[in-house]
Amino acid sequence: MQYHVDGDLVPAETATVSVRDRGFTYGDAAFETMRAYGGQVFRWDAHAERLRRTCDALSLDHGLSDADLRGRIRATLDANDLANAYVKLSISRGVQPGKLTPDPCTDPTVVVSVAELPRGGLSERGGEPVWDAPAIAAVVETRRVPDAALPAHAKTHNYLNGILARLELGQGADAGAEDGDSGGDEKSDTPDEAIMLDTEGNLAEGATSNLFFVRDGTLHAPSLDGPILPGITRRVVLGLADEEGIPVAERTYQPADLRAADEAFLTNSTWEIRPVDSVDDTELGAGPVTDELADAFDALVERECYE
Amino acid sequence: MQYHVDGDLVPAETATVSVRDRGFTYGDAAFETMRAYGGQVFRWDAHAERLRRTCDALSLDHGLSDADLRGRIRATLDANDLANAYVKLSISRGVQPGKLTPDPCTDPTVVVSVAELPRGGLSERGGEPVWDAPAIAAVVETRRVPDAALPAHAKTHNYLNGILARLELGQGADAGAEDGDSGGDEKSDTPDEAIMLDTEGNLAEGATSNLFFVRDGTLHAPSLDGPILPGITRRVVLGLADEEGIPVAERTYQPADLRAADEAFLTNSTWEIRPVDSVDDTELGAGPVTDELADAFDALVERECYE
Repeated sequence: MQYHVDGDLVPAETATVSVRDRGFTYGDAAFETMRAYGGQVFRWDAHAERLRRTCDALSLDHGLSDADLRGRIRATLDANDLANAYVKLSISRGVQPGKLTPDPCTDPTVVVSVAELPRGGLSERGGEPVWDAPAIAAVVETRRVPDAALPAHAKTHNYLNGILARLELGQGADAGAEDGDSGGDEKSDTPDEAIMLDTEGNLAEGATSNLFFVRDGTLHAPSLDGPILPGITRRVVLGLADEEGIPVAERTYQPADLRAADEAFLTNSTWEIRPVDSVDDTELGAGPVTDELADAFDALVERECYE
Repeated sequence: MQYHVDGDLVPAETATVSVRDRGFTYGDAAFETMRAYGGQVFRWDAHAERLRRTCDALSLDHGLSDADLRGRIRATLDANDLANAYVKLSISRGVQPGKLTPDPCTDPTVVVSVAELPRGGLSERGGEPVWDAPAIAAVVETRRVPDAALPAHAKTHNYLNGILARLELGQGADAGAEDGDSGGDEKSDTPDEAIMLDTEGNLAEGATSNLFFVRDGTLHAPSLDGPILPGITRRVVLGLADEEGIPVAERTYQPADLRAADEAFLTNSTWEIRPVDSVDDTELGAGPVTDELADAFDALVERECYE
């Protein structure tokens, strides 16, 4: 596999950054994870827009155009002859003198990494989910970082908050397919996604996913007023629900609201729509609304990327 | 300059980590910054203990002994013929498959970087402060990450919270001496340290320093019950205050308490004791208690490392 680092394609095994890179020393970097379907990055414009917002939040003015960044992704996919892939784009503030206050970003570090990832979605269109089974979720103690400390809309290399949440699920457990890893083959009862609350105890999101649940035919999603990443798949799903005539509510919810749901699912670019089998001891699972949205999502991918 | 990376001494210019290293992708790493005086790492045992606590918080069981880590630091100082130096030791969880949930840490990445840093302290003992001038501080809007999201006692590569605080002080401003950078030569009125509050609005600490202030002869320090790094220099200063018979209080404080102070100073391993010239529009500065503690600190360093 070849990655794209600072303008050059290099073998993944030798793709490196300086130990003085602020991405390493401080996690001072923005990133996006994306899917390529049929050679096309799904919803590139939305990812590029979110990346801009992240960089704005970090005052990281990297000076690179969307077209430049997209070109690096394209070159990386081509070099590896990949059509269906996981794609990660990171931009760090680069190597700077050893002080915390950033200088203007004159030499950002840009990394594109890819991995083959078969088309997801429903079997009737030739795909299969990247996850082996619905998620087993657990509400954890680790709370989402509040916006006052670090804006949740910024997708950065500061990911220890989510790591601590995942570690609560059981040290060293295989957390299943994610970030391009296709996960193990065995079904396990060990939770594989952490449901995180905000510091007030309201439902926020999964460690790497947005949360949805269905009750009495209405699709509920914790509002972006909370410390919640504005997921690209989340936005697509909300749009599809509107198109399908499914009532949608975005509010502040408690864990009890999730436990009382008829259906629940998680979304991210890798998982697409992944049903939640259970949360703690409460069985949830997919259902008619989840199935309808998964079918609509699959049809959308087919339309945008394969036709 | 040579750094120590994964067991080898390498030129700083070519010292790298994989782009897949979790230290880069997630800031999933612990670190310590230290001072070497006269060839000895000041308070190594305290740094080693805090590093263990950080790694415990991250469930990062790197398997390396304190003696091993100290040996790498020693080798790096020797290779660069450094007696008085800034030393940074980082341990990341290393390269793992692309999922957020960590696997057991079988191949940590260990980096030691150093920079020459003249002995600090008072001129009568041959030193001079690494900072050019007392700190100009400002209370910022960015709040310290609460312990419920990420324990403040863990010193990790997730440092965006402090970066956002520093960015509030003025984009691209030279924030003065810190982390081994000796800073600019010009005195500026631009604040160079951000005083951060917790999410409840109580005084916490500086972006890279612990806060002290003096009122009516009593030394006050925000209590470690708040989201505050248990600084090694902070602990040394509190011990010295006890020895000197200076009354000490560790409580929860408001910004108004700082503004009403007679003296204020900041501590970290690099700065040692750095007076606060002003906070926002309030003049503070050093005074008899700050001077007494700075003298006692200097004498302690002389005793432990140079005699």
